[in-house]
Amino acid sequence: MQAHTPIPPSEAVARVAAEAPTLPSETVAVDDALGRILARDVASLCDHPSVDNSALDGYACRVADTAGAAPRSPVRLRVVGEAPAGRPFAGRVETGEAVRIFTGAAVPAGADGIVPVEASREPGHEPGTVEVERPARGEDIRRRGQDLVDGQVYLASGRRLDAAALGLATGMGHARLDVRRRPRVALLTTGDEVVDSGTPLQRGQVYDSNGASLAGLLRAAGAEVVRLPRVADDPAALERALEGAGEVDLLLTSGGVSMGRYDHVRDLLFGRGTVLFWKVAMKPGGPALFGRLEGLPVLGLPGNPVSSMVVFLVLGRAFLDTALGRSDPLPYLDRRRARAGSAFAAAENKETLARARLLRGPEGSEVRALANQSSGVLRSMTEAGALVLVPPGRPIAPGDEVEMMELAPHLR
Amino acid sequence: MQAHTPIPPSEAVARVAAEAPTLPSETVAVDDALGRILARDVASLCDHPSVDNSALDGYACRVADTAGAAPRSPVRLRVVGEAPAGRPFAGRVETGEAVRIFTGAAVPAGADGIVPVEASREPGHEPGTVEVERPARGEDIRRRGQDLVDGQVYLASGRRLDAAALGLATGMGHARLDVRRRPRVALLTTGDEVVDSGTPLQRGQVYDSNGASLAGLLRAAGAEVVRLPRVADDPAALERALEGAGEVDLLLTSGGVSMGRYDHVRDLLFGRGTVLFWKVAMKPGGPALFGRLEGLPVLGLPGNPVSSMVVFLVLGRAFLDTALGRSDPLPYLDRRRARAGSAFAAAENKETLARARLLRGPEGSEVRALANQSSGVLRSMTEAGALVLVPPGRPIAPGDEVEMMELAPHLR
Repeated sequence: MQAHTPIPPSEAVARVAAEAPTLPSETVAVDDALGRILARDVASLCDHPSVDNSALDGYACRVADTAGAAPRSPVRLRVVGEAPAGRPFAGRVETGEAVRIFTGAAVPAGADGIVPVEASREPGHEPGTVEVERPARGEDIRRRGQDLVDGQVYLASGRRLDAAALGLATGMGHARLDVRRRPRVALLTTGDEVVDSGTPLQRGQVYDSNGASLAGLLRAAGAEVVRLPRVADDPAALERALEGAGEVDLLLTSGGVSMGRYDHVRDLLFGRGTVLFWKVAMKPGGPALFGRLEGLPVLGLPGNPVSSMVVFLVLGRAFLDTALGRSDPLPYLDRRRARAGSAFAAAENKETLARARLLRGPEGSEVRALANQSSGVLRSMTEAGALVLVPPGRPIAPGDEVEMMELAPHLR
Repeated sequence: MQAHTPIPPSEAVARVAAEAPTLPSETVAVDDALGRILARDVASLCDHPSVDNSALDGYACRVADTAGAAPRSPVRLRVVGEAPAGRPFAGRVETGEAVRIFTGAAVPAGADGIVPVEASREPGHEPGTVEVERPARGEDIRRRGQDLVDGQVYLASGRRLDAAALGLATGMGHARLDVRRRPRVALLTTGDEVVDSGTPLQRGQVYDSNGASLAGLLRAAGAEVVRLPRVADDPAALERALEGAGEVDLLLTSGGVSMGRYDHVRDLLFGRGTVLFWKVAMKPGGPALFGRLEGLPVLGLPGNPVSSMVVFLVLGRAFLDTALGRSDPLPYLDRRRARAGSAFAAAENKETLARARLLRGPEGSEVRALANQSSGVLRSMTEAGALVLVPPGRPIAPGDEVEMMELAPHLR
């Protein structure tokens, strides 16, 4: 194994993204599309409103007839019909006439304004008439196509579908949507010392927290997770486990990529695969490994709990988000500015992604370094609200402006 | 129907929350728990680390033996064994001895420091020895229990489980977690004019965008959605649909709660149920209705696309989040401060929740009112990043500090 110079994180992100396939699209019902990524632009199949309709309950009539109407000088109109929503009045409103109309109902031909029901009364002594106490207003008619125009695109390919987008797609007339197939990711955690939770620990053992946090991160990213049986630090067992991965888009491993004698993921990729890079100039996460094994992209995450999550957010998401064609920025590139509320230590030749508490105030966000930045500290990722990016060799002083990635949107 | 004075939104939130049951708990595998709400505190079942272990690959030895070690004056130690992670060295390290150790492996008895492998060499002429070029450091030993202490609570009841929390729970030894059962919500959209997407529109018809956006909002809130067949504006059809709701925790309707003749949801609740309140002093969303029908809580949302979403976020979430026992703030109470980048109009006696673009800058967030605040505008909820809270009668001028709710976290 030759020496490997760590590459900058931004370069690692670009190399990983360059290896990502474009996932095929599939058609799903709108009701099943929450969180999915649009695979094509969505144009409206109708005008919305589809006809001029009333913005309120009241009377549709001619504006000219009601000029000067007031409580003390109401204008009397003949009520010639009714227009509930969805049941348009078939006739035409002539001079001196009105149609009782309901919110959302089509405005009848001939009418050009609405008097709200609150500004009207139906005189008992004169059935079939209404007295309006205010001039009718054209502004209370919602015009055909004022919200959506037939044929126009309102949701662009690459958009992540949230509840508002699903409502809009339905309002445009779509019952099904073309979205990217979920990426299938085989997840393998390694290590002689790693055991399943739910059983007592033997001396020196540790529970497989990485398997759980990475499965969660994968699902939050929209992936389908194929959990491979965890393997001990044994090359043969590793190869057997990988054979069971089946048809997947990515193999994600945790552990076994460092410089030690038992780092078999590294050995396997160097021995039988192609290494595209090994070591990234980031802390935590230095020994990250990326390559291919029989054509399958492999991202090898370090085994420390924090390192594995941070490298996943930086590099794993670069692969998955690119494969999904997402139009929103990658987590690593979705930087926000904040004020440092504490010092942040820099590493000599590495970018530090420091866990920080995130406090939002009226003057912007403040970030404060968590006391323990050790990459083994499980708790810290549940306490951190942000990763602060500390450039190599340039420590941050309290009060400095910094760049940070928010964590919450990517963890759930 | 007597006159109903609108109640302030904060009072409506409190009344809705007061009617929410506490959902029972259920036990799920950690792998199925993403997004679920913890039903009890989770304490660690182990110390973590479970034993003193090495933070790096190197040699475990006695610090006193290596005082003064340097590249030009290395200290030679006898290598008496090896300690890979998960396979502890059974013996004891005596004076002048070292054990080859790997990251995460238990530190053998007798050793009180680690020399990193990079600061060592194994001289070929003297097998079974190592020369260390730096003093061993106790700081490179991770101490038992420094991260997690057996019996201590690290995840509190009411927490929404994200990827980091799942990793931590697993690291604490838990394979299964007690979470709240998902609330089951029957969703009913009403209206003669409303039709399914996927079919052509007739004159005056509109697609059921509310059904899609509300189903999305419900799922984003962690609920299970029971879609009832949509009903026309017909009291008998409405009653039949409700009979099909089955065992649910909440009935959510959209449309039919206003002051018109065809508002049958309102009539049904007034006639056969109990109205807890009708009309909230908010815009959009004024005619919101809340009550019970044969014991079942019913939240009646207005039929306008924006109103139904906004009232759901304010009142629907008050019900669901309370039933789930969530410890994070309700969306309506999770206010952030921002600077107004535009004017915001106020309503006379209502709090306005104005749709706004959200721009984040180094000096904090800026919000700009969307041009069209009509509650019928489907598009606007996909364009808005925030709802700005405008107090009754107190319009906002550009430059003012305002309170806002961020939308994105609640839409997906």
